[in-house]
Amino acid sequence: MPSLSLRIDLDPDGRVGPGKIELLEHIAAFGSISAGARQMNMSYKHAWGLVEEMNRLFGRAVVDAQKGGAHGGGAGLTKLGMELVTRYRAIERAAESAAADHLSALQRVIESAD
Amino acid sequence: MPSLSLRIDLDPDGRVGPGKIELLEHIAAFGSISAGARQMNMSYKHAWGLVEEMNRLFGRAVVDAQKGGAHGGGAGLTKLGMELVTRYRAIERAAESAAADHLSALQRVIESAD
Repeated sequence: MPSLSLRIDLDPDGRVGPGKIELLEHIAAFGSISAGARQMNMSYKHAWGLVEEMNRLFGRAVVDAQKGGAHGGGAGLTKLGMELVTRYRAIERAAESAAADHLSALQRVIESAD
Repeated sequence: MPSLSLRIDLDPDGRVGPGKIELLEHIAAFGSISAGARQMNMSYKHAWGLVEEMNRLFGRAVVDAQKGGAHGGGAGLTKLGMELVTRYRAIERAAESAAADHLSALQRVIESAD
């Protein structure tokens, strides 16, 4: 069955999709970038690169790297980061609900004989 | 202002997003893969690769390359290809409508002072 995924496109040509949103959720849940990255089997370096990309895209921080040790210092989401996750998930729910009938119809055409 | 873009995800790990949909629309409008590609400043080879990728993803043809010359033979969308474009655009309209308030709220947070 086809499913839907969303990207929020930002000027000039960056976007935030399901991977970055999931990373932010894990950072929020586990309290650090390194722990969040680990949950996704992602290197710290890659996770940090994604966070920096989002900070740059929005012109504001989405993650607040609090004071802490050089390795594994605590981190949480800023107000912007929290809004981003919350709004993304709300849009996703609304879009999935709006898309359900269309995706079912598409699946029927895929499965049909001609 | 942030905007939304959609991908329809298909097993195992392929997807159809705005670029492929636009290509299909141009193929339908101009009656050939080469003319559709030209409208998007895309090489014929690249366009053909995208069409083949969709045919493979769906296990069925989305474009019907009709009999014609070796170069620029006519082409149109199959029933599946037409359904794909129509359903994608319908989902997009519904999702954009559902997302509008969330995207405005996000924009306000991006622009706010803290």
